[in-house]
Amino acid sequence: MARESSRVVKSERFGWRDVPAATYKEDGEHFKGITRHTLLGERDEERALGFVTRYFEVQPGGYSSLERHEHPHAVVILRGRGRVILGERVHEVAPFDCVYVSPGAFHQFHAGDEPLGFLCVVNRVRDRPRLPSDEEFEALARDPAVRDLARR
Amino acid sequence: MARESSRVVKSERFGWRDVPAATYKEDGEHFKGITRHTLLGERDEERALGFVTRYFEVQPGGYSSLERHEHPHAVVILRGRGRVILGERVHEVAPFDCVYVSPGAFHQFHAGDEPLGFLCVVNRVRDRPRLPSDEEFEALARDPAVRDLARR
Repeated sequence: MARESSRVVKSERFGWRDVPAATYKEDGEHFKGITRHTLLGERDEERALGFVTRYFEVQPGGYSSLERHEHPHAVVILRGRGRVILGERVHEVAPFDCVYVSPGAFHQFHAGDEPLGFLCVVNRVRDRPRLPSDEEFEALARDPAVRDLARR
Repeated sequence: MARESSRVVKSERFGWRDVPAATYKEDGEHFKGITRHTLLGERDEERALGFVTRYFEVQPGGYSSLERHEHPHAVVILRGRGRVILGERVHEVAPFDCVYVSPGAFHQFHAGDEPLGFLCVVNRVRDRPRLPSDEEFEALARDPAVRDLARR
């Protein structure tokens, strides 16, 4: 009746038991101070989920890549306050705010003075992110708030 | 470049701006004290998401339906502590624990002394839930912890 693969993944202060934090190269070229935990949906026995639930944490002063792709994101902020570049605008975000990043929209998450943690759910099958060209970056940076915040 | 449909849904103490709480009949036959907010993915312009992100909140002493279906659930607890019947076992859950409910597994979420709030992400296309038959209920209730907790 009940299939074997149901499970609970226990949380421990924004870590999860048996879920390693993916370590990115610290202070990469286009991102800074960010880790990723893949929580649900990546395992083979969870492929009935058409999506993958990941948790990202950005350290104070850090940011994710400024990028876009054809797959959308469904984001729910879990901790901290920060700002997100979403297309050509900057939004403040706080716990439990939700963000829809539509196909093709450039986006970048910036932590404030404390770690910014958020769930980011994506379709299981998805395309690779692309960084902005110089022209695209200039178009984004027409908005002064975006220009001040954006890192690439 | 950026498509129009990107958006931020602002949270206000476990409510969300412009997101109505779906009200169930209070104290229904097989659930009690539960509301649902559909946060992301249900709108037509968000159909590029293959999934829908909902937030459920169960009031103290309340519970969701004991049910199963072929679509799986990806659950992340956001507030409160409670217990979940997952197949033939009972698990304690607390904030940021994740639960994978596999296809066909009976499940029921029970709040403890405070509201239990959780995200529940599902495939956009999914089947309807089914309640247990008498035989199925008896099979589940072989476990004493399930028997004590289950409501139907």
